[in-house]
Amino acid sequence: MSAEDSAGPLSHRRSWSPGVVQQVGPAGTVDLGPGYLEPGLLPVDLLAAAYPAALAEYGSAALAYGDDRGAVPFRALVADRVARAEGPPCGPDNVLVTAGTSHALHLLATGLAQSGEVVLVEQYGYDYGRRILADRGLRARAVPMDAAGVDPAALDEAIATTRAAGERIAFAYLAPTFHNPTGLVSPVGRRRELLAVAARHGVLLVEDDAYAELGLDGGADPVSLAGLAGYRGVVRLRTFSKTLGPGLRLGYLLADPAIVGRLAGTGLFTSGGSANHVTSLAVAWLLRSGEYDRHLGWLRSRLRERRDALAVALGSGLEGVVEFTTPAGGYFLWLRSTHDEARLVTAAAAAKINALPGSRFGTGPQPTVRLAYSLNPPSALTAAAEALGRCWRALSSLERTHP
Amino acid sequence: MSAEDSAGPLSHRRSWSPGVVQQVGPAGTVDLGPGYLEPGLLPVDLLAAAYPAALAEYGSAALAYGDDRGAVPFRALVADRVARAEGPPCGPDNVLVTAGTSHALHLLATGLAQSGEVVLVEQYGYDYGRRILADRGLRARAVPMDAAGVDPAALDEAIATTRAAGERIAFAYLAPTFHNPTGLVSPVGRRRELLAVAARHGVLLVEDDAYAELGLDGGADPVSLAGLAGYRGVVRLRTFSKTLGPGLRLGYLLADPAIVGRLAGTGLFTSGGSANHVTSLAVAWLLRSGEYDRHLGWLRSRLRERRDALAVALGSGLEGVVEFTTPAGGYFLWLRSTHDEARLVTAAAAAKINALPGSRFGTGPQPTVRLAYSLNPPSALTAAAEALGRCWRALSSLERTHP
Repeated sequence: MSAEDSAGPLSHRRSWSPGVVQQVGPAGTVDLGPGYLEPGLLPVDLLAAAYPAALAEYGSAALAYGDDRGAVPFRALVADRVARAEGPPCGPDNVLVTAGTSHALHLLATGLAQSGEVVLVEQYGYDYGRRILADRGLRARAVPMDAAGVDPAALDEAIATTRAAGERIAFAYLAPTFHNPTGLVSPVGRRRELLAVAARHGVLLVEDDAYAELGLDGGADPVSLAGLAGYRGVVRLRTFSKTLGPGLRLGYLLADPAIVGRLAGTGLFTSGGSANHVTSLAVAWLLRSGEYDRHLGWLRSRLRERRDALAVALGSGLEGVVEFTTPAGGYFLWLRSTHDEARLVTAAAAAKINALPGSRFGTGPQPTVRLAYSLNPPSALTAAAEALGRCWRALSSLERTHP
Repeated sequence: MSAEDSAGPLSHRRSWSPGVVQQVGPAGTVDLGPGYLEPGLLPVDLLAAAYPAALAEYGSAALAYGDDRGAVPFRALVADRVARAEGPPCGPDNVLVTAGTSHALHLLATGLAQSGEVVLVEQYGYDYGRRILADRGLRARAVPMDAAGVDPAALDEAIATTRAAGERIAFAYLAPTFHNPTGLVSPVGRRRELLAVAARHGVLLVEDDAYAELGLDGGADPVSLAGLAGYRGVVRLRTFSKTLGPGLRLGYLLADPAIVGRLAGTGLFTSGGSANHVTSLAVAWLLRSGEYDRHLGWLRSRLRERRDALAVALGSGLEGVVEFTTPAGGYFLWLRSTHDEARLVTAAAAAKINALPGSRFGTGPQPTVRLAYSLNPPSALTAAAEALGRCWRALSSLERTHP
């Protein structure tokens, strides 16, 4: 496979029939909205090999009820992978297999929280994540961020204020690495400060690391909050949705064995076993064979091309209209503007480009827009950026004329 | 494949390594406990063909976020299958893909119920199902059964009494077909009576049909409560766990489109899409190709051999010790006895046979024991029944000597 396999955004989107996949952009529109991978980046052939390989290896055990926390071979592989990447010891007892990050958040919201409690969230954050919490009656309360992520002093104050008002805090939910939507990576110093605040107050941190393996600039991935804390007081959520495909519905969480045991010791797991048994064994085969790492390297290169195509083309000629910091990983470019976000998004739509208003993810001092570079090939992203440049510059001159 | 492929219970159980599967019986014990399929009955080769076939057919769409309610091709296939079997119209809008019955129960307990509400359950019923409800703060209240299933007059009274006490009823949870643990099938007249009671009171029925495709005597499967009600006021839970393998984590529920929409219109589905997308497409291939029906016919024959082996061997020589009605389908033989259940189970354990005490599933006038015939080949079941006969007759003569 190579980037040239991509035959353009429309043909790919059309290959996703409505009714099979979750959402298909309107025909003729370049979709920079959802955090999806471009169809040509999803490793269909690898999975077509992995399932039969797992079924051959494990036989009937792959179709039986899986160990409640997840099959040990899978848990051992991911624990070992994390320990090698980050240093602090991590073993199978730190791992619970989930059906992805949404499922993990839902599990935490049902298993570790009570309706009416507060969840501290980032000023900007994953919109559907907050909806999962709200569905369970949890009340999200936003904590201000700065250029390094969540502000530790603001977190400290939010905890104190919430508790002073007699409210209980279920946990704080944050994504310090290749943050959705801003692309931010909190440096290690900031991470330690956040951990110290949480530990001082005894507040559990839930670390959403959906994009953490998607660093695009070749450096080492940042050590997770969970790793820094030795898996005490932090539940780290990981998923294969952003690297292998969300249709697998496979992820895992890393936590203290007591929390893993508490989540798995429920009727849901006692009855059904592993959250996604046969798929976890298929992915275990990809991990052990090295195919996952080869794919990940390839995917990072493809995403780097896409990020660069969008960032370079947007970066020229939109000074004073939108500004952004090129993210070091993940799927998204986060634009700040002086223009009203609705005007930006509407102008983009008129140019047949779907962009998401930043207010969907939170609010701050400036209007914002999120653009995903994950769903289109570089040439389409370059063309889209040029079109955005034209329509947004036109908006600016229009506003100068008719403010 | 044939029944002769089964090399005996121990070798098969040993092939299920601890740590991969949920539970492995103690070495040297014939396990008549859990509702598992014998390893040799799990269609490993079929699934090894189905996943690559689905990935070839749908390509990247099989790895993308699936339609929130589940991919339409899968939903159309199961809806059509149900409509053909039962008569009343059923379409894709009546279907929500789930990750199995446990997941479905958990979804209903979180999405259609509030903590503290009452769930009316059968006098005997699926133990882990009740645990899933209890985990969500729901209070199970047992309704008496007779030889035709739940007693409609008792259901009527339980609803009235509960409401008179100011308590809210979330739903009534029952399994009218090849009931776990009793094996009962409620006749159509009884079904209509139960539906009438529920409709009169406006109580939602949740119909657990995990075993409904496993009729062993060649007759037509009974029409479901949901089918009789035209999918109004009844949520029917189905799963592939008992026919293809629980490691798939795939099931679906059938309901009124409004309930399907309400369950799917949550952050969990909006975020993650279909509960088990790629696996649902693999099973769609098995359904469409006819492989599923061929497997099901074969599996029914194998289960019939096993049921008959256990029932015939137990039926001779245990008169006055245990009695049972040979079930028309499902996995279980339900024994009633005049002996204390703990004595029966302990004596069985001494003979290296694992049997489950009936009190695990509910209480009634007589001591009871549940034996699964699904997990061992016929020869092992015959030998186990003979051993049970010896040890339980010895118990009887012992009790006659030392009452």
